[in-house]
Order: sequence, then C-alpha cells, then structure tokens
Amino acid sequence: MDPYCSICWDANRVKLLDQRRLPGEEIYLDITDYREVIEAIRTLAIRGAPAIGVAAAMGAALGALALKTDDPAQYQVRFLDICREIAAARPTAVNLFWALDRMQRVAQDHAGEPVAAIKERLVREAQVMLKEDETICRRMAQAGQILIHDGHRVLTHCNTGALATGGYGTALGVLRAAWEAGKRFSVWVDETRPLLQGARLTTWELGKLGIPYTLIPDGAAAALMSMGRVDLAIVGADRIAANGDAANKIGTYGVAVLARHHGIPFYVAAPLSTFDFTIPDGSHIPVEERAGEEITIIRGMEVAPPGAPALNLAFDVTPNDLISGIITEKGVALPPYSSSIKALRRAAE
Amino acid sequence: MDPYCSICWDANRVKLLDQRRLPGEEIYLDITDYREVIEAIRTLAIRGAPAIGVAAAMGAALGALALKTDDPAQYQVRFLDICREIAAARPTAVNLFWALDRMQRVAQDHAGEPVAAIKERLVREAQVMLKEDETICRRMAQAGQILIHDGHRVLTHCNTGALATGGYGTALGVLRAAWEAGKRFSVWVDETRPLLQGARLTTWELGKLGIPYTLIPDGAAAALMSMGRVDLAIVGADRIAANGDAANKIGTYGVAVLARHHGIPFYVAAPLSTFDFTIPDGSHIPVEERAGEEITIIRGMEVAPPGAPALNLAFDVTPNDLISGIITEKGVALPPYSSSIKALRRAAE
Repeated sequence: MDPYCSICWDANRVKLLDQRRLPGEEIYLDITDYREVIEAIRTLAIRGAPAIGVAAAMGAALGALALKTDDPAQYQVRFLDICREIAAARPTAVNLFWALDRMQRVAQDHAGEPVAAIKERLVREAQVMLKEDETICRRMAQAGQILIHDGHRVLTHCNTGALATGGYGTALGVLRAAWEAGKRFSVWVDETRPLLQGARLTTWELGKLGIPYTLIPDGAAAALMSMGRVDLAIVGADRIAANGDAANKIGTYGVAVLARHHGIPFYVAAPLSTFDFTIPDGSHIPVEERAGEEITIIRGMEVAPPGAPALNLAFDVTPNDLISGIITEKGVALPPYSSSIKALRRAAE
Repeated sequence: MDPYCSICWDANRVKLLDQRRLPGEEIYLDITDYREVIEAIRTLAIRGAPAIGVAAAMGAALGALALKTDDPAQYQVRFLDICREIAAARPTAVNLFWALDRMQRVAQDHAGEPVAAIKERLVREAQVMLKEDETICRRMAQAGQILIHDGHRVLTHCNTGALATGGYGTALGVLRAAWEAGKRFSVWVDETRPLLQGARLTTWELGKLGIPYTLIPDGAAAALMSMGRVDLAIVGADRIAANGDAANKIGTYGVAVLARHHGIPFYVAAPLSTFDFTIPDGSHIPVEERAGEEITIIRGMEVAPPGAPALNLAFDVTPNDLISGIITEKGVALPPYSSSIKALRRAAE
C-alpha cells in the first residue's frame, strides 16, 4: 500500500488528493457532490487517464446515491444524464468514457431492481473499479519490468505513478516493479510544461519510492540522448487507437521522435481501458485545448506579457511506428500492432 | 531606434536593462564597477551572445577607467587581469572572449601611449563595438530576410532580439527585417525553459514590433510540426565551430532534430564574432552547467520537492548536418560548411 492515494471511497464520500497543490501541500478534498468531481477532473485536482476513469465512476456513484426518485425508469434516465455531464469534463482520456459506460451498463443490467439496490450496485462497482485499476497496474508493471535493466537511465514524461491511477501507476509502475525486483537504475524526469506534472508529481513519487532521479527541462532530453545518457524512454497514454497510435501529454511525441533519431527504445505503458478500439488511428483522437493562461501564468505568477497569446494543446499523438512496444496488463504488444493489439484484446475478453 | 536598449554607455557608466525583471518591470541598472558587469552577465541580467560580448567590452572599459596606476607597463598587466576576470563570467558564448581579445589588442597596440590616452581608446572601442554590433545585426537581418515568406509560420527558441545584442537582434532581427520589408507571417515562440527567455523576452519584443506570435511550451513544437503548422525554424547561436556545429540555448538541438524529421528548414543566425575558428567541431564547445534551482524554483517559487536533484545544462550543440543555413553579416553559409564558412571568413578579413 502507498502512503497516499489519488482517490478513494469512504462512507459515501470521495476522498481525493488535490494534485494541484502537490508537492507543497498534501491535502485531500472531501467530496459528496458529483459536480465537485467534475470540477476536480476539469481543474486537474485529479489527472492521469486511469485515475480520471476511477474518478468518473465514483462521481457517477455519488450522483446515483443523491438521485431522489424511486421510479426505476426515471432513475435510469436521470443517471444517464449525470453520466453524460461527467463525460463532458475532459475530451481526450478515453478511460473517462470507458468507466462511465461500465457504470451505465451496471445500471441498465439491473434496471428491474429497486432503486436502492441499483444505488448499492453502482457504489460497489466504483469501488471495484478502483481496486481493479491497482491490480491491473501491478500486472502491467510485471509485464513491463523485464524491459528495465541494471544501470539503465530511463527518461519519462509527465506523471504516470500511483497518483495517475487507482494505485501503483502505469509507466512509473513499471519502474517501480523493476526497482522492487532489485534492479538499480535512474530516471530522467521531464518537468512537463505547462503544468509541471513531472517536476511536481513524478519527483514526489520517485522520492517516496527511493528511486534516484534527476529533473530536467523538457528541452534537455534531446541533448542527453545525443550524449548517450538515455537508454530507454517510457511514458503513459490517454488514448490508444486500434493501430497503436497513442495520445499522451503534450511533449510525448517529441520524445518519441528524438528517441527514434538516437536509436533509443520508446515504450508506452497503459491498461486496456486506455485503448479505443472504435477508432482506426490517432487522427480520430480529440486533442483537448486548454486555457493559454496555463502557460503564461505559473502557479499564480505571470511569466509572459499580460494578454500574450498562447496555444495550450494538452496532448499530442505519437504514431505507432515510433513506439517500440505497448505494455498492458495482458502483456507487451510489439509491432506490427494491427495484429498484436488484436491478440491482446482477445486475451482480455 | 528601439524604445529600449540592452546596454549602453553613458558618461562613463554602463546602463543595462535588467532582463531578469522583464516583462514585468523595465529597470535599468546603473553600473560603474566592472565587477557589477560580471555579476550582471553571470546572473543573466544581460544575456545573449552578442550582448554579452558588448557587456564584456564595456565592463573592461569600466575596469580600465578605474585603474589607478600611471605606469603603462603595470597598466597593461592589470588590465589583462581585469579581462581575465570578466572572461570567467560565463564559458559558452565565444563573443565574450572575442570582445575581450579585441579590447586587449587595443590596449597592447597602444602600450606606448600615456595611460590616460589608452583609457580613452578603450572606452571608445567599447562604444564602437556596441554600434558595430547593431550594424552587423542589421546586415545579417538583410542577408537572412529573403528566407522568410508571406504566410510563413516561423518557430523560434530562446531570445535573439535587440535584447540579446547591441541592437536589432540576430534570428529575431531576420524576422524584423522581413516584417519591415512588408512580409506578413507569424511566429511560434518556444517559452524556453528553464529561464523562459521566450515567454518573457521574445514575446515582449515581438509585441513591441507588432509581429503576431503565439507562445507555446517547448514540448509543443513537435506536435505543431507534425500538424504541418510550422514552415521554418530560426534560432541564434552562442558559439559556432569551424565546421558549423552550433551551440545555443538548451532545447535548440531538439528543435533541429524535429525540424529534420518533419522536413522543415532550420536556420541559425549569428554574427561572425560567434564563430570559434580555433575548434574543428562542436565537441570542443564547453557547455555551461548552471544551478539546478533555475529549474526547481521559478521566479522565487518552488515547483519541485525541496532538494529535488535537477540537471541544468544551459546549452546544447546542434551538429552542422541538421542546419539548413547559417545567416551572418557576410551572407548565408550553406552546406557543405567546411568550404562555405571558410569563404565567409575570408570575406570578413
């Protein structure tokens, strides 16, 4: 168990570590209204595709509990509305929609039961999803840790640890499992502008795990690669198309191009819930554009002239041909992805 | 004339725009002691290779004025000591050493004259170098502006405007000349972590010039290139080896690799004083490593856990094969650089 959790369910309340305040303050939000969960997702109090999925499920459970009707048909309709509202919180991470679909299926599958029973089922499902997410992360980490070797200098981008998931982490989970298996290596942490998830969160998690790391500006990764000081890059994902094209935090695609240029393997670690099998390739992934102020104002302080125009694409898409392997809880998919991802999907069914 | 200047000489004082405070405050330091010039260079109150060269010359002039001996031989020795002290301020930009060499040559060429006369010559030389730097920038800009076309979306990294020079700018000077020639285009400004010269200074200068720009995090350049939204990249340089390998602000090399991957031309604009003909290639360029706190603390605010280890390489080196052309005041050098740079050097003699 971690000494912290990104999110948990406690006596019909959601407790959620406010990641906007990390690493300075470790404060848990205590949430009873699903609208506050939406706000927490939107403002990045909780972020990371798997964690967003769990948060959405718990938000839906809060919403389900608060519904005041005893009419099962009306209940279904109103629960669906709540799920739709939550789904609009952020567009890119597919785990959000995946989690809400799953909650809706539970509601629909038990539509004939009394409202109180459905409520109980939804609350239970959200908790199951949290638990499952950690289990899946641990499996993924075991599948991936064989790729990490003693002496490796691993580069990572953004945050993919326990904070980004229901527990343990995706890409950072792989490193954690390797470390727990006794391997000794070090990590280059991209600070990950604009919101500094690397500087604020990944450093904080690696510090707690005792894994040695060095923080770098995003622009320094290329120089370190050219000096032969990076052996492997590993990142998470927010949505992976059927062909393996992967959306992740802005800056990831650049790391992938640089890794290819320098002959460095580039891995993506993500649970199967991050795959969107309905889209053939990455061109269909909607990329969220957030406020320019996230670039021009750093933690409340202006770092550009007032009103400076800034473009804040939250994600970019890495084409499958730059990805050396995709680590999932069902094993590592290797190129050609059209067949290897299909095989993983079959294994999951 | 610009409504601001990076540095000027006024009644035996150096006036220097404190770039650490931009864009929030426009404050000029009023310097009479050469040690304060060293401090200003070290702490980046003034930065940009050509501006550092001018600052070093003016610092040497301040030091020359203050020397209390009337013995010409002793004067030479003590002036040399001052130049050595200034030369230790920063290691990468070769303009610093070039400027001090030139000041020393003036002192030595007139070693037989009375001390008062040498002082006067040195003060004059520093002022000539400021004036020359702006003239050279304007010539470079004219040589380079033919590369900019209507509708271009130009990416630049760090700051290379009037602030980085004695006036007008290098890479930004090229854009400025193109704008003044009536071409209409827009600029993607890399914010340039860790010290945000792009966000703080380039935006400020482009704003004053009326050239439309959009600020982006350094990690977003790759995504924009892959979307076909970048037509050309142009940067400055801090030192260029005889073969065209160019050191510039950390992150530049990554832009060059990405530009190559996407088939986008990548230009370097720098005066001949930035060339170091004594080194055959970029492997001989000393890369300054600055304090990790420049990464972990943004404008006085901690953005990483206390004591988080951070590596702060201030520069990286772009190999000549990634550079489409090097724009100088004597024309644009094209590959193969071994011959084209030699030709420029001959033209300058």
